[in-house]
Amino acid sequence: RVKDALTNRNEVDIAEFLEDLPPEKMAVVFRMLPKEMAADVFAELSVETQQTIIESVTDTEISQIMNDLFVDDMVDMLEELPANVVKRVLRNATPEKRAMINQFLRYPEDSAGSIMTAEFVDLRKTMTVGAAIRKIRSTGLNKETVYTCYVTDANRRLEGEVSVKDLLMAEDEAGIESVMDANMISVVTTENQEETAKLFSKYGLLSIPVVDEENRLVGIVTVDDAVEVMEQEATEDFERMAAMTPSEKPYLKTSVWALARHRILWLLVLMISAMITGGVLQKYEAAFAALPLLVTFIPMLTDTGGNAGSQSATLIIRGMALSEIRMKDALKVLWKELRVALLVGLVLSLVNYLRLRWMYPGNEMIALTVVISLFITVVLAKIVGGLLPMAAKMIHADPAIMASPLITTIVDAFSLVIYFSIAQRLLHI
Amino acid sequence: RVKDALTNRNEVDIAEFLEDLPPEKMAVVFRMLPKEMAADVFAELSVETQQTIIESVTDTEISQIMNDLFVDDMVDMLEELPANVVKRVLRNATPEKRAMINQFLRYPEDSAGSIMTAEFVDLRKTMTVGAAIRKIRSTGLNKETVYTCYVTDANRRLEGEVSVKDLLMAEDEAGIESVMDANMISVVTTENQEETAKLFSKYGLLSIPVVDEENRLVGIVTVDDAVEVMEQEATEDFERMAAMTPSEKPYLKTSVWALARHRILWLLVLMISAMITGGVLQKYEAAFAALPLLVTFIPMLTDTGGNAGSQSATLIIRGMALSEIRMKDALKVLWKELRVALLVGLVLSLVNYLRLRWMYPGNEMIALTVVISLFITVVLAKIVGGLLPMAAKMIHADPAIMASPLITTIVDAFSLVIYFSIAQRLLHI
Ligand SMILES: [Mg+2]
Ligand SMILES: [Mg+2]
Ligand SMILES: [Mg+2]
Ligand SMILES: [Mg+2]
Ligand SMILES: [Mg+2]
Ligand SMILES: [Mg+2]
Ligand SMILES: [Mg+2]
Ligand SMILES: [Mg+2]
Ligand SMILES: [Mg+2]
Ligand SMILES: [Mg+2]
Ligand SMILES: [Mg+2]
Ligand SMILES: [Mg+2]
Ligand SMILES: [Mg+2]
Repeated sequence: RVKDALTNRNEVDIAEFLEDLPPEKMAVVFRMLPKEMAADVFAELSVETQQTIIESVTDTEISQIMNDLFVDDMVDMLEELPANVVKRVLRNATPEKRAMINQFLRYPEDSAGSIMTAEFVDLRKTMTVGAAIRKIRSTGLNKETVYTCYVTDANRRLEGEVSVKDLLMAEDEAGIESVMDANMISVVTTENQEETAKLFSKYGLLSIPVVDEENRLVGIVTVDDAVEVMEQEATEDFERMAAMTPSEKPYLKTSVWALARHRILWLLVLMISAMITGGVLQKYEAAFAALPLLVTFIPMLTDTGGNAGSQSATLIIRGMALSEIRMKDALKVLWKELRVALLVGLVLSLVNYLRLRWMYPGNEMIALTVVISLFITVVLAKIVGGLLPMAAKMIHADPAIMASPLITTIVDAFSLVIYFSIAQRLLHI
Repeated sequence: RVKDALTNRNEVDIAEFLEDLPPEKMAVVFRMLPKEMAADVFAELSVETQQTIIESVTDTEISQIMNDLFVDDMVDMLEELPANVVKRVLRNATPEKRAMINQFLRYPEDSAGSIMTAEFVDLRKTMTVGAAIRKIRSTGLNKETVYTCYVTDANRRLEGEVSVKDLLMAEDEAGIESVMDANMISVVTTENQEETAKLFSKYGLLSIPVVDEENRLVGIVTVDDAVEVMEQEATEDFERMAAMTPSEKPYLKTSVWALARHRILWLLVLMISAMITGGVLQKYEAAFAALPLLVTFIPMLTDTGGNAGSQSATLIIRGMALSEIRMKDALKVLWKELRVALLVGLVLSLVNYLRLRWMYPGNEMIALTVVISLFITVVLAKIVGGLLPMAAKMIHADPAIMASPLITTIVDAFSLVIYFSIAQRLLHI
């Protein structure tokens, strides 16, 4: 019955079903899968489950699965498995596959080489369309990996690409050279995975060829894996922007220790920075001793500054991540943020002024102190928020760290100094 | 020369080149494009540029472009154009296309219907593989739109799907019914676009069929458009999480007025909330009048609380957006955040305690006040940050609004009350 239930479902759903089983049952159910599905389901499992299964099946079964698995999925798994399990897996692969995998495992993390796969159709310029279609029909690959075919020369150098659609639309007798596109987009193995994924969204690609420094075709990245990279990179930005060390593991599968470790570093850095702000504040002790009412406006002032700065920083960081904002736009950003800040600062100050006149009638000077500080803080926050992410990029740091937490801390320090200096001057304290 | 330069480049790059031209040259250069490229380039242009071109070409040219444009790209454009331009465009479309577009324009914004296109290959169960391949070869569609074919009955009801790869691998004489997959994934026209896009990343799809309430196939969504939706939805979350009204326009193309408008509402709401915090603080005026030193710890306390809460909120919001965290996980989240908070709170408090003992020797009680408040604040912040996004979902609000700015404001209020109540008790002020 389990077997029947499994065969009519999608690999992804079966993998999800397997993940929820008790570990001792995983291999049992996995063995029930029809042969042609086993590798597809295996590729969708988490590394933990893959390891559980590997540890409970025979060497023959391992080499069976490894033969059917695409190189990219195999590499993804081997990158995470403990060394002894990796050894056993590689021992059960064919010598050629072993050599290829060892090569693929050497590409730097987060590079195009680390997410590419080796299964693609390569054609020669001199072939006819008919011969090309016959070659595709005889190579049993999966979807994205056949829909774009790559044309290479005798030295495996990439010369062009041709889509299956173009092949189907052409005459059988036509030469490949006449239907191929020689201006295709390609990346080198060391290209960053995020930049590679961006090409998919920019050009609407299904796959992209990956070449080495001599322009030899070594693999392809397919759109499903590019989508995964996009999601991961966005998650990384969300985490960095909230002052965390990024991690690829889903929240519910991350241990409490790991979660705490990812959070504590930035919390400490920011806490110590805020202590410095506190130290600066001490200089003005006389001021708030003389007029304790001043203290009650601190949360409003620092929070509004932090929020105003975060808004700007977020738009710039996201715009840079989507390549909509580039370094050469720095002046445009500055000019735009300045004008937005003046508008927004004016409205916020006005609302505040009305409230202060209403709640503390007669305290004209206190109202002025608060409102002027608020206005300067908002303008300053928006400029800092707009420019710091670009400055980070300039020194090759991730712009995403220049988000809310850091901006808030910086703006807090400045806004409090501004506030109390103005208070001292206007209120003579 | 311009013409030569244009023909050997990708449509997307040509569109980028056109965007940067002065408006009066756009139509001139656009006319130089080879006929078979014109619609592909046109589809990649911004609506502003599309409008400029439409306003400077003849009715015949319009109907030419409209004939070659895919329905989804046409709908995207018509949704944004002013009414008089829409009228002129529709007047130049064939009656059938006009009827279809009017139907497509009625699908709700952000639904699968609003991003689908009408170009797909539909087959019948009773066809042979050979006949199906001939049908594909005679229908000149673009890439993603031919690689998955849909099998429908006489009433256009969706019965299955078959990939071109499976067709190519099968014998010409085989029946479609024997190679098709009847358990395919489909969505109804009213399904949310974000949920639709998630299916692409979950199942690694190239296209997804869209059906009406009677399971009749009305269109397909292709992976390139799903990728665009994913990017837009992530941007929306970034913007909401930084207390802005989301917008689909790139930063540099948004006017200062619009930017200010998107930011002012939340700034006002949060500013007024922070004023209430200030009001609460007034209750403790006697305390900081008696001991002004207490004030200098406020930035450290509120910022650390805000940061701790934002970290939790961000992980939960992102986890929910990726469907990794669901409502039923609320207790797990609470338990996890509580333990992380205890760990992180302990470390932060310890560091603070050591610093306070070193900088203010003899002031044991002040050190205790600060450290206890900090610890309680961090725990509270992590719980509030972890649970509020889930609470938002429960009342069908976007969890993304429960991010840093709102959490910070809430935590500020609580942390200050905690701080001064403890101070009053321990320091007898
Ligand atoms: Mg990898
Ligand atoms: Mg990685
Ligand atoms: Mg893959
Ligand atoms: Mg990265
Ligand atoms: Mg990044
Ligand atoms: Mg702050
Ligand atoms: Mg939309
Ligand atoms: Mg639309
Ligand atoms: Mg489209
Ligand atoms: Mg589109
Ligand atoms: Mg949305
Ligand atoms: Mg959303
Ligand atoms: Mg704060």
